[in-house]
Amino acid sequence: MRQNFKYVFVLLFVLFSTLSANDKKEINVMPIPAKYELLDSKFKLDNNFGFTVKGNVDERLYQYATRVLRRLSGRTGLFFKQDVITKQSANQNNLFVIDCKKSGKVVLGENESYELKINYNIITLNAETDLGIMRGLETFLQLLTNDKDGYYFPSVNIQDNPRFKWRGLMIDVSRHFMPVDVIKRNIDALAMVKMNVLHLHLSDNQSVRVESKLFPQIQQNCTDGEYFTQEQIKDIVLYASNRGIRVIPEFDIPWHSTAWFAALPKLASAPGPYTLERNWGVFDPVFNPAIEETYDFFDKFFGEMVKLFPDEYFHIGGDEGTPKHWSENTQIQAFMKKNNIPDIQAMHNYFNLRILKILTKYNKKMVGWDEILQPGMPTNIVIQSWRGQQSLFESAKKGYMGILSAGYYIDLIQSAEFHYLNNPVPDSVKLQPAELDRILGGEATMWAELVTPENEDSRIWPRTAVIAERFWSPSSVNDINSMYQRMDRINFLLEEVGICSIKNQEMMLRRLCNNNNTKALKTLIDVIEPVKGYTRHSQGVKYTTYTPYTRVVDAAFPDVKTARDFRNKVDEYLITKNIDILKDLTNLLTTLKNNHLEIKNLISLSPILKEIEPLSLNLSKLSLAGLDVINILENGQKLSASAKSEMLKTVENSKKPYGQTEIMIVSAVEKLINEAGK
Amino acid sequence: MRQNFKYVFVLLFVLFSTLSANDKKEINVMPIPAKYELLDSKFKLDNNFGFTVKGNVDERLYQYATRVLRRLSGRTGLFFKQDVITKQSANQNNLFVIDCKKSGKVVLGENESYELKINYNIITLNAETDLGIMRGLETFLQLLTNDKDGYYFPSVNIQDNPRFKWRGLMIDVSRHFMPVDVIKRNIDALAMVKMNVLHLHLSDNQSVRVESKLFPQIQQNCTDGEYFTQEQIKDIVLYASNRGIRVIPEFDIPWHSTAWFAALPKLASAPGPYTLERNWGVFDPVFNPAIEETYDFFDKFFGEMVKLFPDEYFHIGGDEGTPKHWSENTQIQAFMKKNNIPDIQAMHNYFNLRILKILTKYNKKMVGWDEILQPGMPTNIVIQSWRGQQSLFESAKKGYMGILSAGYYIDLIQSAEFHYLNNPVPDSVKLQPAELDRILGGEATMWAELVTPENEDSRIWPRTAVIAERFWSPSSVNDINSMYQRMDRINFLLEEVGICSIKNQEMMLRRLCNNNNTKALKTLIDVIEPVKGYTRHSQGVKYTTYTPYTRVVDAAFPDVKTARDFRNKVDEYLITKNIDILKDLTNLLTTLKNNHLEIKNLISLSPILKEIEPLSLNLSKLSLAGLDVINILENGQKLSASAKSEMLKTVENSKKPYGQTEIMIVSAVEKLINEAGK
Repeated sequence: MRQNFKYVFVLLFVLFSTLSANDKKEINVMPIPAKYELLDSKFKLDNNFGFTVKGNVDERLYQYATRVLRRLSGRTGLFFKQDVITKQSANQNNLFVIDCKKSGKVVLGENESYELKINYNIITLNAETDLGIMRGLETFLQLLTNDKDGYYFPSVNIQDNPRFKWRGLMIDVSRHFMPVDVIKRNIDALAMVKMNVLHLHLSDNQSVRVESKLFPQIQQNCTDGEYFTQEQIKDIVLYASNRGIRVIPEFDIPWHSTAWFAALPKLASAPGPYTLERNWGVFDPVFNPAIEETYDFFDKFFGEMVKLFPDEYFHIGGDEGTPKHWSENTQIQAFMKKNNIPDIQAMHNYFNLRILKILTKYNKKMVGWDEILQPGMPTNIVIQSWRGQQSLFESAKKGYMGILSAGYYIDLIQSAEFHYLNNPVPDSVKLQPAELDRILGGEATMWAELVTPENEDSRIWPRTAVIAERFWSPSSVNDINSMYQRMDRINFLLEEVGICSIKNQEMMLRRLCNNNNTKALKTLIDVIEPVKGYTRHSQGVKYTTYTPYTRVVDAAFPDVKTARDFRNKVDEYLITKNIDILKDLTNLLTTLKNNHLEIKNLISLSPILKEIEPLSLNLSKLSLAGLDVINILENGQKLSASAKSEMLKTVENSKKPYGQTEIMIVSAVEKLINEAGK
Repeated sequence: MRQNFKYVFVLLFVLFSTLSANDKKEINVMPIPAKYELLDSKFKLDNNFGFTVKGNVDERLYQYATRVLRRLSGRTGLFFKQDVITKQSANQNNLFVIDCKKSGKVVLGENESYELKINYNIITLNAETDLGIMRGLETFLQLLTNDKDGYYFPSVNIQDNPRFKWRGLMIDVSRHFMPVDVIKRNIDALAMVKMNVLHLHLSDNQSVRVESKLFPQIQQNCTDGEYFTQEQIKDIVLYASNRGIRVIPEFDIPWHSTAWFAALPKLASAPGPYTLERNWGVFDPVFNPAIEETYDFFDKFFGEMVKLFPDEYFHIGGDEGTPKHWSENTQIQAFMKKNNIPDIQAMHNYFNLRILKILTKYNKKMVGWDEILQPGMPTNIVIQSWRGQQSLFESAKKGYMGILSAGYYIDLIQSAEFHYLNNPVPDSVKLQPAELDRILGGEATMWAELVTPENEDSRIWPRTAVIAERFWSPSSVNDINSMYQRMDRINFLLEEVGICSIKNQEMMLRRLCNNNNTKALKTLIDVIEPVKGYTRHSQGVKYTTYTPYTRVVDAAFPDVKTARDFRNKVDEYLITKNIDILKDLTNLLTTLKNNHLEIKNLISLSPILKEIEPLSLNLSKLSLAGLDVINILENGQKLSASAKSEMLKTVENSKKPYGQTEIMIVSAVEKLINEAGK
């Protein structure tokens, strides 16, 4: 029921926005600003354009403005006269005047608001801090448009500020390592959509990814040679900071910790021996909370790490505990008895309080997953909720700050719409103002079991841009149709800062096709997606750290546009009964029906494709059924019960995944069949 | 005359290889091995495949083998059971047995030979050193093929070794900086084609790109913030060394040195003030050779640098001196007089001998461009010849070692064929054995005025693979047709190690088309190329360090395949008079004729394309002329003199470059017109 309600709701939105498109001009940026007014004139761009920088700013803003100028130049081919922008050289021609009061601090809660006014002859960008200026410059860049005569910016007045203070992306670099260049391009992309936190999940069962000078055995034994040096961490933190983005390190303890014990076996709760975990899942290895060596180690190790990560928050994970190793260790059991620690949860709490003491000594505030919210925790910690909004609201009521990640697990291949409608604080929620204040925002989480640097970007983007809008824009910004239109544009713009989603898919398709023409595979992949949630692990294929992630499923996009458009058109038809829409559907279905022959030919040239042969065949049959039913609908006929039943068998068959991918137009064809059978 | 002779020669090759294709099986790898024999059986690949490693090898070979296994897995989608390969874990199933005597030294002249035998049930790879094993593994990877049933390796016996000892690529990181990830992917690509030297051109008028701990003002004032830290240099050197590749640093002195003086103005020969040069060209700033501070500085700075670069060779540039600043400086003039230094060249020699003394103290041998070959130089230096082969032979006769770069300037957008036929030691050359030994090999040089990390790879690859074959394979390997076929395949395989030529063009086309369909622009760009040589600087556009390199000319490939194939077909027709060939030509010309309408539409949507409108129009007219003349040829008619004259006007018009690009099928259409007018 709820599902259906949501569905009608979305449809109404789609219709509404289509109808109202001519009435209200919407600004073509993502995230949508808090307040704006589009005006009628244009600021025309030519090679005299440049920045005048006023106010009390430091080097990083000049660098930011220089990058913006170069990005504009790259898009337009204009040979701007302005060179590297510095305090000395900042152009004084007053075409684009930047003015800000001070250099902002890259900390939780810093002022990021800005005011951007584009007039026909001058652009002004004012802000309290340079962080606000950075946000405004990204809005400005997205506003570039053109007609056949050249490039221009539409006139607009914008007053903008974020809804939430903590708007982040977590990147798991433990399961598969993501080198510095992957991290940097994603930082640039975060800045583009006004996110302000990069959370690095630096350790897990499979590896620990930071160099330690005190414990070099960590990089020797826990990394397979793939880790960030301390210099690289400093470089990443500075790079992020220059874009107004905080970096939060996470060391996930006491569980999720097999890898540590390849270097530090004595700190484990069970005897071992330990090697890096190569499989995916939840495992039992856990730090021994009953020995002082554990806390000595973290005192030293965190003492080293806090120097690398200047942010006041420090994430200790704490999720998914299993009782086994603590229960089986007699020393730990004795320790618990002696210290009146009644159960595993209390033991976890004891461990966390000891870790808290260490972090507090280093002037760090603790962040952890839901599980760390236990008795005795001070209210200056931050709870990251993977369990759901309810858990977040309860924390807030208890006085704890929280950020939401439930509903933003972008590794699970859910739709942008799903994430977009996942509001950290729905309007219906009744919380006191002080409680509301404690809900700081949220984070998209990119777990890395099933990705490599090759397809990482395609899992993060463009859906994270949609989540960024959810965190930045007013709660009232909810138009799905508009969101998707702007998301598709952002997806294109993200290439400018190096995001590889689109181009790496093209490369992967070439490899999959063994350098033959990729057209047929592209046609197929545009209507299929990887299976959702955790089902990919339960389809007879066992993935590990070293299995290939280069198959069709790895090249396939989440929330694929061609299939989405097809489903939307079917929904539109079902409401409007406009027969013209059926013609568009016919085109795609005809292509898909005929595509299988080409796919078969490709498979004979490239054995890696063999696994999707049944999927392609089913798609062909489904498309044929779709064409038949459209024919019936166009002719105003009714589908016979027996034909309907036959077609629904085809539909059921088409729901089966192959190669861990599934066809994304099945439900739409099913709707058409049901409609024709009415 | 010479041009025509070469042309017939090439044609004969093309014909010969076409005719002989069925007679002799050629191995499908680049570079072609010294000796090989293709056999009839197959080694079939399945997920039991793995490496058995014997002999006395160290960690880097296990890592190399692991990477090879993962690359195979990535291509085939096979879930190999073998995990990370280590001394302990190396699989003992004897399917692929690696055996080598020792870990090689990554120095000039190390043994890189190997023997690879692929039998139906076992593969063996033997070598004296692990460098030989690495070269053999790359051959092995290129041999992977498939039929409809799966993947296999053809049986083969290979005995391979390089023709030259020094096979390199120079990357200029001064004019435009190339970050670590660009360098690393190019190192992997070099390894793929068995090159063994990466030469980094680290300083020039525009910047100095290495961190100095002794002179931090260098990174502060000479880099625009873009430079390699010392840790990054060490990382690059190790990365290269693990692939059997030497890294040669070049600091280009005493000229090409404006950037240094932004940090060290007192070491310049003219008073300054100095800022980083933003323009391209040859400039006068030069180190002052008459003051001890200059030599003190290099003693300290090189003392720091030699610790980062372990190779025994160290490059000091020395090219393109201008007399101005030394002539105008009275102190220098007085110094010359006092020390009996008669002229500027002698002054340069004095400077070099002082620098030589410093390098010798640090156990380094000097490398420099032609100009450093002056009286008093010891014969253990290496001359890098940019002036030509004659200069190389003369050096060799004088007792100097040399490497050839003339003819390998890959930034000049010449054809692969041009570079391929540029033999460092043509068979006709008469040199004594000892003189021949002194010709160590050569280097492709990638000067970076007109490239950024975005299109760098497309200038280096795939043409550098062809140069690699010239340096590795026997002089008798000269088949242009075969070379192009294998080059096109290598171009695809290079994507596996991260080379971005193809995918970045796709991205650049999307940006150029403002996210509209790129098909028409792709059709156009497939038959045009950037203008050749240095003409790009003389066409009314002034490039600097900060102008955009994102235009059509920057996305266009050198030696573009579609145009090359068209020209070859025309040549084939002219010899064979086979009318069927004309049909293929008709298809492309028809597409090109009609393409202009679509280009015009694209231009209205994306103003950056405006500059190539006249080119597209000319191409359309040229194609129409081509179609008309083919019609005449097909019907066995003769072109009238007036029609011919009219058509040749169209041809002349089509030779004009626009947006610094030119149409690459003009000469072929011209040939058809002349043929029809006979």
